Amino acid sequence: MPQGNPIAVPADGLTTRARRNTPVLAVHTGDGKGKSTAAFGMALRAWNAGMRVAVFQFVKSAKWKVGEEAAFRELGELHERTGVGGAVEWHKMGSGWSWSRKAGSEVDHAAAAADGWAEIRRRMAQQRHDFYVLDEFTYPLKWGWVDADEVVNALQARPGHQHVVITGRDAPPGLIEAADLVTEMGKVKHPMDAGRKGQKGIEW
Amino acid sequence: MPQGNPIAVPADGLTTRARRNTPVLAVHTGDGKGKSTAAFGMALRAWNAGMRVAVFQFVKSAKWKVGEEAAFRELGELHERTGVGGAVEWHKMGSGWSWSRKAGSEVDHAAAAADGWAEIRRRMAQQRHDFYVLDEFTYPLKWGWVDADEVVNALQARPGHQHVVITGRDAPPGLIEAADLVTEMGKVKHPMDAGRKGQKGIEW
Repeated sequence: MPQGNPIAVPADGLTTRARRNTPVLAVHTGDGKGKSTAAFGMALRAWNAGMRVAVFQFVKSAKWKVGEEAAFRELGELHERTGVGGAVEWHKMGSGWSWSRKAGSEVDHAAAAADGWAEIRRRMAQQRHDFYVLDEFTYPLKWGWVDADEVVNALQARPGHQHVVITGRDAPPGLIEAADLVTEMGKVKHPMDAGRKGQKGIEW
Repeated sequence: MPQGNPIAVPADGLTTRARRNTPVLAVHTGDGKGKSTAAFGMALRAWNAGMRVAVFQFVKSAKWKVGEEAAFRELGELHERTGVGGAVEWHKMGSGWSWSRKAGSEVDHAAAAADGWAEIRRRMAQQRHDFYVLDEFTYPLKWGWVDADEVVNALQARPGHQHVVITGRDAPPGLIEAADLVTEMGKVKHPMDAGRKGQKGIEW
């Protein structure tokens, strides 16, 4: 539980209010569980605060996140019906992005990841959402499908008050450097080590 | 993202199905952020799977979790109205528990924590919920308000298929030992280190 009092007040010339309203870039990395789950927990809080939430899943198969996706779709519908919370969009790379015409049986994952990032960059320029989850986005960076320096520059230049959470192992050093909040999820013990398989409602 | 294949198959005499259906005891500990947030993300997934979710917050002031609480109350109402997802209960110690008559201006926090645990133990015996979040429950254990060995014994003896997630720093060794899934959230960088205060939708 974070304390309300900052450890130090920086000499950055900002008022407390300006500093408080700084948009957050968060990175959840490490080998342990909870990176995406904590990001979705943050998104839940953002939704409750009325923010427009958008999730972008950079994975080929999204089967592990169907529970979160279904729950957020319910929250998005609740917002549309009653005005409670914020709008929700959920996009996954799967076999091509939902906004793309390129989907087909022969998908170039590197190109799809680059397309995904290009779209996110466009949306950030338009300030289309308030809270972005770029789930497992570290992998296309690691594999060189998307240029990490370009990502860091675009994130640092994003206008307005847009929060971004990026998840995945092996976050590149430049991203760690640029982030305001970095949490390393370390695995201490995992049931799959004991030979258990995942189960519905727990693993996905 | 966990892989679908377990690293090793244990010689525990269980079928894959029996092992898959083993209820999970998870602990989120460490000095970093995301312990509770990841627990609420898991609860969201459990809710979507139709599980009866119950959250018990063992903190005096629950101001940091109001966003999650509000969002889960919406999900609980959505369930009651439409049958989607599972039932939700959210209890916080605050100044006494909601089920207790003892609330008053002079609250004995040690006694309140013990009452909270006694109630959870009763509910587990009755299999009243499917997914329990015992938020910041490590603190009453650490401070000796609730006996850690008794907790571990009760958790290990819980009947049926009840999942439990416990959050907080300094989880006692016996609890770590008993847990199926332990994640250590390590702080790498936090905006409050840079003199920022928390902001709505991000910190609470």
